Amino acid sequence: MSYLIDGLQYANWSEKIFRQMRAGGVDAVHVTITYHETFRETVLVIEQWNRWFEQFPDLIFQGRTADDVCRARETGRTAIFFGSQNPSCIEDDIGLVEVLHTLGLRFMQLTYNNQSLLASGCYEDEDTGLTRMGRQVVAEMNRVGLVVDMSHSGERSTFEAIAQSTRPVTISHANPASWHKARRNKSDDLLRALGQSGGFLGLSVYPHHLKDGGDCTLQSWCDMAALAVDLMGPQNVGIGTDLCQDQPDSIVEWMRVGRWTKAIDYGEGSAANAGFPSMPNWFRDNRDLAGIRAGLRAAGLDEATTDGIMGDNWHAFFARSFGRQDAPTTKQDAAE
Amino acid sequence: MSYLIDGLQYANWSEKIFRQMRAGGVDAVHVTITYHETFRETVLVIEQWNRWFEQFPDLIFQGRTADDVCRARETGRTAIFFGSQNPSCIEDDIGLVEVLHTLGLRFMQLTYNNQSLLASGCYEDEDTGLTRMGRQVVAEMNRVGLVVDMSHSGERSTFEAIAQSTRPVTISHANPASWHKARRNKSDDLLRALGQSGGFLGLSVYPHHLKDGGDCTLQSWCDMAALAVDLMGPQNVGIGTDLCQDQPDSIVEWMRVGRWTKAIDYGEGSAANAGFPSMPNWFRDNRDLAGIRAGLRAAGLDEATTDGIMGDNWHAFFARSFGRQDAPTTKQDAAE
Repeated sequence: MSYLIDGLQYANWSEKIFRQMRAGGVDAVHVTITYHETFRETVLVIEQWNRWFEQFPDLIFQGRTADDVCRARETGRTAIFFGSQNPSCIEDDIGLVEVLHTLGLRFMQLTYNNQSLLASGCYEDEDTGLTRMGRQVVAEMNRVGLVVDMSHSGERSTFEAIAQSTRPVTISHANPASWHKARRNKSDDLLRALGQSGGFLGLSVYPHHLKDGGDCTLQSWCDMAALAVDLMGPQNVGIGTDLCQDQPDSIVEWMRVGRWTKAIDYGEGSAANAGFPSMPNWFRDNRDLAGIRAGLRAAGLDEATTDGIMGDNWHAFFARSFGRQDAPTTKQDAAE
Repeated sequence: MSYLIDGLQYANWSEKIFRQMRAGGVDAVHVTITYHETFRETVLVIEQWNRWFEQFPDLIFQGRTADDVCRARETGRTAIFFGSQNPSCIEDDIGLVEVLHTLGLRFMQLTYNNQSLLASGCYEDEDTGLTRMGRQVVAEMNRVGLVVDMSHSGERSTFEAIAQSTRPVTISHANPASWHKARRNKSDDLLRALGQSGGFLGLSVYPHHLKDGGDCTLQSWCDMAALAVDLMGPQNVGIGTDLCQDQPDSIVEWMRVGRWTKAIDYGEGSAANAGFPSMPNWFRDNRDLAGIRAGLRAAGLDEATTDGIMGDNWHAFFARSFGRQDAPTTKQDAAE
């Protein structure tokens, strides 16, 4: 049986959700721990996670290597891998890349919608590509094993990150724009280039990224998955649901507005639809993740490809991405 | 041949000093990385160490477990273990204990001369013992494997830390006051209690802790080591030189004054002798460390006891101190 991995969630975490992860047989989740938070604020979130790890050791533990996914399966727990959706957590300090990797950060987006110190976000009028600091930080992320995530970046910035990075880049949560046109979804050209570089796409279940929004059917979504496999290659696609379970609407406002404006910004929503959108009825929480398997088979994907999308592809991506490039420290890293 | 370990240095680190560590055959050093620095400032120092580790991988690497001392010996390098001489780095936030342990901190003093949020320093008029936060932090340090270091604490605080801590406490750099009376040296009663609890004493070569200061002879120092073995037990004594090589006098002022006073405080020095004191001529730098061995044998210590003091005792102390208490994560931790 393949691994079951969700490549992006940002829930209002609780014992209930951790128990749903176990009920759903989820081996690993990449969780967002920070958006616009400073380094010190991000450390406060890590401290909260440390308390959850201490409080619920039978349900969850902190994942650091691909081997931890195996350990999760063997011990009946879910491995939690940390990620950031914006580089605010490294402030203007490249030294924080390694510090945060040591604390367990395994993914970092170069931007979240807006221009950052590193690159341009997908909502800016002008995408000027990687900045001077952006090129330096990508090299440092490559060195320590922190994955470059371009989910919320502009197209030129993403092409440049793919070209600049010596290790595979990910778009952890988005879909092909040729299936559903949205600011956050990605062009076929971009996805082909990402796949050819060994990069990775996590397919999103967030309604703003779906054809027909929350009414999108599982069949339609799985047809889209087949399209993504055609564009990216069967080994370069997984799931990144973008599950924002149990979050109050104040959180989506924080995600969109941070401290960068005094006005309101609706991001992918609108004044009439400002809060979190409702998820499709076939994906409410972690217990529904495994149910996607049957839909993928029904969409004509073979068993190996389906196993890959459900988790084996993410597992292989973790194995080649999280170790240090300069000084192998584990057997797994050395084997790369 | 025994391991060679120095249990406390705070030098003005440089390639020159790292090469002297190798010339001296030093397997491991506990280095002070922070005194009065906030958490964020401490992280900046860790970033500097990360750059040194990247720059000089053939000379040094970051030590995290006792096994890293063996790895240092096997690969001809020196393992660097981080420590703090004051709890400023955890601010008022107990969650930073685990965060700093994850970043490699292995020792933390509860005080540096003054009252802290945790306990009383050895220069306060009143020693009121462990504070409410102090008791909580000692328990958290025990849980994650961060060693309680009482080198600069008052006597009552030290007795209380020994009683409160469920794991061995250290005084990483001090000497018996019955050999040389000094505010920083420790009473026979205290050292006996420390030894009986399985705690550890690192013998200092810092002139203010020595009979006759910088003129102290190696023979006198080694006779003192024999006295310490009598007080503490042969397995509970090692070396903690307090080497402050190449530091400008502005640093000893920072150590003593931090940001806690606008006036000057001379600590163990005086207005007439305000800077760093001169080290004894038999201990200038890391190349002189191994030379202490002959002095210990001449003082009548047997080979096993001498091996212990030179490094084997610290190594065994590291092995029982640095692992987590709640959830063993390595074979070595599990064996404890």
